[in-house]
Amino acid sequence: MSSFFPVSQTKDALEQGSEFTPRFDSKGLIPAIVIDAEDQQILMFAFMNAQSLKLTLETGQTHFWSRSRSEIWHKGATSGNVQEVVEIATDCDQDVLAITVRQHGDKVACHTGKRSCFYRKVDHGPKGTKLIWK
Amino acid sequence: MSSFFPVSQTKDALEQGSEFTPRFDSKGLIPAIVIDAEDQQILMFAFMNAQSLKLTLETGQTHFWSRSRSEIWHKGATSGNVQEVVEIATDCDQDVLAITVRQHGDKVACHTGKRSCFYRKVDHGPKGTKLIWK
Repeated sequence: MSSFFPVSQTKDALEQGSEFTPRFDSKGLIPAIVIDAEDQQILMFAFMNAQSLKLTLETGQTHFWSRSRSEIWHKGATSGNVQEVVEIATDCDQDVLAITVRQHGDKVACHTGKRSCFYRKVDHGPKGTKLIWK
Repeated sequence: MSSFFPVSQTKDALEQGSEFTPRFDSKGLIPAIVIDAEDQQILMFAFMNAQSLKLTLETGQTHFWSRSRSEIWHKGATSGNVQEVVEIATDCDQDVLAITVRQHGDKVACHTGKRSCFYRKVDHGPKGTKLIWK
């Protein structure tokens, strides 16, 4: 799978180079943070394998690896909520992707029907820890 | 380790409930996206285990699990670039954290000396794929 992409030979090439050498973990996956181009809000988080990253680059729409179904997941293929890729950034050691998208369809990224999966935040205090809606 | 935090008993509780029941993967880790409170830019991405998440809640400063050193990593403890927690959000199925911080010290989150780890983006076209500086 990772033969779709080259591998950096040095730490300097990995961190400072211009070659895209994404690093997949022991399961062949790389984390992908998905950000809305409209307001930079984080919409969702998922994993890609090399094939889904290749498809994302080639089609300009996000594809992920569904760990629960063990298959390529073309985001929005059934719901119409496809994500058009605006930018794919990677981090210093190229083992994470931050993907800016235009969210199409109902502008909903989360399977719960909410725009963003991150709709709750932790409230931590002397009385304990709970989640509250953002 | 995960005994620091309760476990949701139902999918509905997990996705719609007010109990914070973070889900750690098979290695006991949860991904954490770190966002700058100043402008919502993504600064970095790392993993937490239950102990480092507990420390983050208790101290109000980010703590991670260093996979390379196999130890708790108090971000900025040596450099001074500590991160003061403003908000910890979690996603629909509580297996990712999005942590908004005030970045202190030199306002640098990346070990390369850059403010954000995401300083390069993928340029993909007919001539091939390469990274360019943002």
